[in-house]
Amino acid sequence: MTERIREFLRDRRERGIDEGPVLVVDLDVVKDNYTAFAKALPDTRVFYAVKANPAPEVLSLLASMGSCFDTASVQEIEMALAAGATPDRISFGNTIKKERDIARAYALGIRLFAIDCQAEADKVARAAPGAKVFCRILCDGAGAEWPLSRKFGCEPAMAVDVLEHAFKAGLEPYGISFHVGSQQRNQHAWDRALAQAAAVFKECGERGINLSMVNLGGGFPTKYLKNVPTVRTYGNAIFKALRKHFGNRIPETIIEPGRGMVGNAGMIETEVVLVSKKSEEDDVRWVYLDIGKFGGLAETMDESIRYAIKTPRDADAMAPCVLAGPTCDSADVLYEKQPYPLPVSLEIGDKLLIEGTGAYTSTYSAVAFNGLPPLKTIHI
Amino acid sequence: MTERIREFLRDRRERGIDEGPVLVVDLDVVKDNYTAFAKALPDTRVFYAVKANPAPEVLSLLASMGSCFDTASVQEIEMALAAGATPDRISFGNTIKKERDIARAYALGIRLFAIDCQAEADKVARAAPGAKVFCRILCDGAGAEWPLSRKFGCEPAMAVDVLEHAFKAGLEPYGISFHVGSQQRNQHAWDRALAQAAAVFKECGERGINLSMVNLGGGFPTKYLKNVPTVRTYGNAIFKALRKHFGNRIPETIIEPGRGMVGNAGMIETEVVLVSKKSEEDDVRWVYLDIGKFGGLAETMDESIRYAIKTPRDADAMAPCVLAGPTCDSADVLYEKQPYPLPVSLEIGDKLLIEGTGAYTSTYSAVAFNGLPPLKTIHI
Repeated sequence: MTERIREFLRDRRERGIDEGPVLVVDLDVVKDNYTAFAKALPDTRVFYAVKANPAPEVLSLLASMGSCFDTASVQEIEMALAAGATPDRISFGNTIKKERDIARAYALGIRLFAIDCQAEADKVARAAPGAKVFCRILCDGAGAEWPLSRKFGCEPAMAVDVLEHAFKAGLEPYGISFHVGSQQRNQHAWDRALAQAAAVFKECGERGINLSMVNLGGGFPTKYLKNVPTVRTYGNAIFKALRKHFGNRIPETIIEPGRGMVGNAGMIETEVVLVSKKSEEDDVRWVYLDIGKFGGLAETMDESIRYAIKTPRDADAMAPCVLAGPTCDSADVLYEKQPYPLPVSLEIGDKLLIEGTGAYTSTYSAVAFNGLPPLKTIHI
Repeated sequence: MTERIREFLRDRRERGIDEGPVLVVDLDVVKDNYTAFAKALPDTRVFYAVKANPAPEVLSLLASMGSCFDTASVQEIEMALAAGATPDRISFGNTIKKERDIARAYALGIRLFAIDCQAEADKVARAAPGAKVFCRILCDGAGAEWPLSRKFGCEPAMAVDVLEHAFKAGLEPYGISFHVGSQQRNQHAWDRALAQAAAVFKECGERGINLSMVNLGGGFPTKYLKNVPTVRTYGNAIFKALRKHFGNRIPETIIEPGRGMVGNAGMIETEVVLVSKKSEEDDVRWVYLDIGKFGGLAETMDESIRYAIKTPRDADAMAPCVLAGPTCDSADVLYEKQPYPLPVSLEIGDKLLIEGTGAYTSTYSAVAFNGLPPLKTIHI
């Protein structure tokens, strides 16, 4: 919640602009976050996870500050290049790539690729000969709020074979990556993963393959309703874990913050469209907003991310509500299993602020479901 | 699955176009579906649920055949008008509307609105004076595959008050609507809802309010993996239920097919990007496609809709797979709790056809998540 955003929205309303919902991102906060990461882990390179918010304004700012970029597709690589990043500062971090997309990335100068199986190593070897690869290992993600499946990564034992295979195929086995789970509120989550990474380093070394790098992934949280440790706390815990598992041979490291870089920089202004009950006896109200699951708040899926919501009546008495989006889709309900407390005085037309929405909102938005336009985003 | 689509895709590939994924919709199937609905319920007006697939090609075809349109937003109203529908053939069927959107719809000539509470009636009375309103009642949706929450509608007892309130506010209480749940495979699901509707008609009548119309909603299914009853079977069951609950005073009726109108007209061609295992011991393969939950297959949420998938190797032995999408989001997994059987011979680069994807796909697609473009759609 920044004063700059509040002021911007106030000014916008005074000028009579009232087309909601809108996401406003404060670039000063992004700047501060980058600085905090750079300070907390001074020997670690920052690869911003472009998918969290690929707006040109964000990418240009980070490129100018020296950030590197973790990308998920050729389009994201092109965005990072357009923002001023050189190819050596960009990794193609998606373990699932079409071979022709690897070739496109290679043609654009990209030389660092994620893999998690031999088939993907073969694709990279054919389309990006001699490139550096890092193998992602599975990690249980305990303590994370946004669930991680087993979708990415392989068991550590298999990673050794995958990297050896990559080596034989002419690639440069560069390191290991893992992800401790998005919105990871436990700063010690890196410890176990680093133990596994160190074991892979050792086993690879025994096969004559010397790895250089550990990609510590993302997972750095944004404050929603609960407090989260500071970036500095994470930095300290990670450095300790590195020291513990790698001794005085600490490898090159990179981090991939996405949510942690932009989450708290954004705020969505939304409007109450309807407040109603389903029967005279209901004690829980239904509150309908002009944004929902398909308008940018996809991370409310299974009520995983619980955003902080501010209303102009927060001094009044509160009562639980079912909170829903504006579409004719009955699955477009944000919080129902655990109703959300909102002022009893809440009225149709009230403007609410949804905090911590700078990451994983704008690009998640449906292209035109129910004819509704994608989430409007403004960077200030 | 139509021969026209197969031929189109074959021809496309021969011309060297290989940018997937793509949704191809066969308009001949939409035509047949409209005719089937019109025949099965000859006294019922068809209001196509625009949200299912708002492509201009679909809307123009249906408008030319005489269809009416159920819309969820002002944008959808504008699309229906652009396709050639007159305002008297368009309903604003969303129960959650901003007052300024009601005013816009009224200015465009719309005179039929859905409501489900007094506050919404008040908005319509102010912004669309004298308009017809129908009140949506809750319905349990048992037997439906796409879950319906309590998001839309009110208890029948409250509907009577809402309609009386609308009447006092100068609106024309026109009828009742309900929705038996999307992908409703039980043709008798309408019976209980019609009993409730008849009771509301009666109680309104006792208060001097004579309702004219029952909006039977949608729910008409598309064949995915399981067979579904024919449209004719639904027509017969609904007519019987109408006769049973309304005797020889059968009201005017409308239906709002969406999935049932366009679902089986579309087929998505997708490519296998990766087939892998997480460890040597895994017996379930992971198969990654170039389309997933955020690229148009949002209805795989909670594995609700289970699509039929055809491969070029369906004669081979099958084995269960976890099926996932291409994004760097670990939630982008289509079928995991109940793995999907696919040929053991399946290879990277194979083209798969996902059937029954003409509804609720193109517009659900994320605008640019992971830098990926929204689902490309072609109507033939």
